[in-house]
Amino acid sequence: MALELYLDLLSQPCRAIYIFAKKNRIPFELRTVELLKGQHLSDAFAQVNPLKKVPALKDGDFTLTESVAILLYLTRKYKVPDHWYPQDLQACARVDEYLAWQHTALRRSCLRALWHKVMLPVFLGEPVSPEMLATTLAELDVSLELLEGKFLQNKAFLTGPQVSLADLVAITELMHPVGAGCRVFEGRPKLAAWRQRVEAAVGEALFREAHEVILKAKDSPPADPTIKQKLMPGVLAMIQ
Amino acid sequence: MALELYLDLLSQPCRAIYIFAKKNRIPFELRTVELLKGQHLSDAFAQVNPLKKVPALKDGDFTLTESVAILLYLTRKYKVPDHWYPQDLQACARVDEYLAWQHTALRRSCLRALWHKVMLPVFLGEPVSPEMLATTLAELDVSLELLEGKFLQNKAFLTGPQVSLADLVAITELMHPVGAGCRVFEGRPKLAAWRQRVEAAVGEALFREAHEVILKAKDSPPADPTIKQKLMPGVLAMIQ
Ligand SMILES: N[C@@H](CCC(=O)N[C@@H](CS)C(=O)NCC(=O)O)C(=O)O
Ligand SMILES: N[C@@H](CCC(=O)N[C@@H](CS)C(=O)NCC(=O)O)C(=O)O
Repeated sequence: MALELYLDLLSQPCRAIYIFAKKNRIPFELRTVELLKGQHLSDAFAQVNPLKKVPALKDGDFTLTESVAILLYLTRKYKVPDHWYPQDLQACARVDEYLAWQHTALRRSCLRALWHKVMLPVFLGEPVSPEMLATTLAELDVSLELLEGKFLQNKAFLTGPQVSLADLVAITELMHPVGAGCRVFEGRPKLAAWRQRVEAAVGEALFREAHEVILKAKDSPPADPTIKQKLMPGVLAMIQ
Repeated sequence: MALELYLDLLSQPCRAIYIFAKKNRIPFELRTVELLKGQHLSDAFAQVNPLKKVPALKDGDFTLTESVAILLYLTRKYKVPDHWYPQDLQACARVDEYLAWQHTALRRSCLRALWHKVMLPVFLGEPVSPEMLATTLAELDVSLELLEGKFLQNKAFLTGPQVSLADLVAITELMHPVGAGCRVFEGRPKLAAWRQRVEAAVGEALFREAHEVILKAKDSPPADPTIKQKLMPGVLAMIQ
């Protein structure tokens, strides 16, 4: 039985896993779970992930949730090049530090930027006040400052001279506000140059393919009322 | 130069690191950073952690933040018993899964329970509406359900038959609402029995010592206005 990955490329951690698996030629069967259709809330998917979230992995009888855990599992099982998650004690700790930091920092602000700017008003027809949006975008700025000042600094990549899981998790995250039309890299030449390096490291065609869905998210037609009602509780919990 | 750990035992991830280091006889110098006195906001501490948060580690020239990264660093550097973070691929993935999940789930609800129930009203003199407190405690219930239903299930420990980093991170988290006077284990016999097993595994004296501060948090005298003003922005960002 092949490895199965339950993903929706609309989701930033799913994009990280998709790119990682493709780039490292890890064979897998893609099981698409369409979030905007509420497929993650189905009984069938709850069998795979009772948390009803993507990404999820199934490897024979073994199922695993949480993107960071899935990336580490793939790293170890498929013996990918060392730079993704270095054996060196300190280099590895730097990757762990970024992967722990992002959960409540960059993840939160990128998710809220997308939903407050685009998905709530356009897709779900729920107005977001200008004050709320301004707060969200100010929080995003704080996270971007930390990403550059505390993590990237003057290095080529976030945790050292080579691309690691941290860069992949970060860049797929930043493409969320980019998809929402935020000019994340404008006036941030260091982050812009880093983005180019990460894209080159994973391959531009693969990067583009993985981001097609999010770059079109702005143009999603409005959800019908049944879908809206189904999605709202999960969305509100997710972006709180 | 000995390993330095910058901790305040009022903080749940600091307690996890403290217990882990003591239990595994890892020699370290304790640098106490008193959060309620605003010591984490000092210029001196910003040199160690520009994020101005505890815990932080200093090992010679190498500084590291983020509790999960610190625990993994100690695990690898000091070659602690395998059960803390197993070599086995699937067992290790289970620990990673828990450590990733907790950031936005149990961490968030336990932190909010402590601050909404005790620290905001009693220490900072900021009233919390009964509706807000009720929402917070309802969220805590959801997290506890998931902790038991998705993670503990019918196992002895959260990720398998032996204690791991996941149990340590979870129990120190739960002692936050316990410190706030929430009856977390009442009506939850499985979680209560698990708590006993974790306490026995780390040693009851050490467990008690690490939790003295949080169990007295309810009785903190009110902050003076200067301290309150200094702490408020960080507190509001942390519990949002
Ligand atoms: N911490 C998890 C977060 C997973 C998550 O929140 N997934 C979102 C998509 S990015 C989801 O499935 N949301 C649906 C919902 O919460 O209802 C991870 O990194 O894998
Ligand atoms: N994700 C970090 C969180 C660190 C954190 O939030 N520490 C709190 C104490 S539990 C702190 O220092 N708060 C002070 C502030 O945010 O102003 C970790 O797990 O180490």
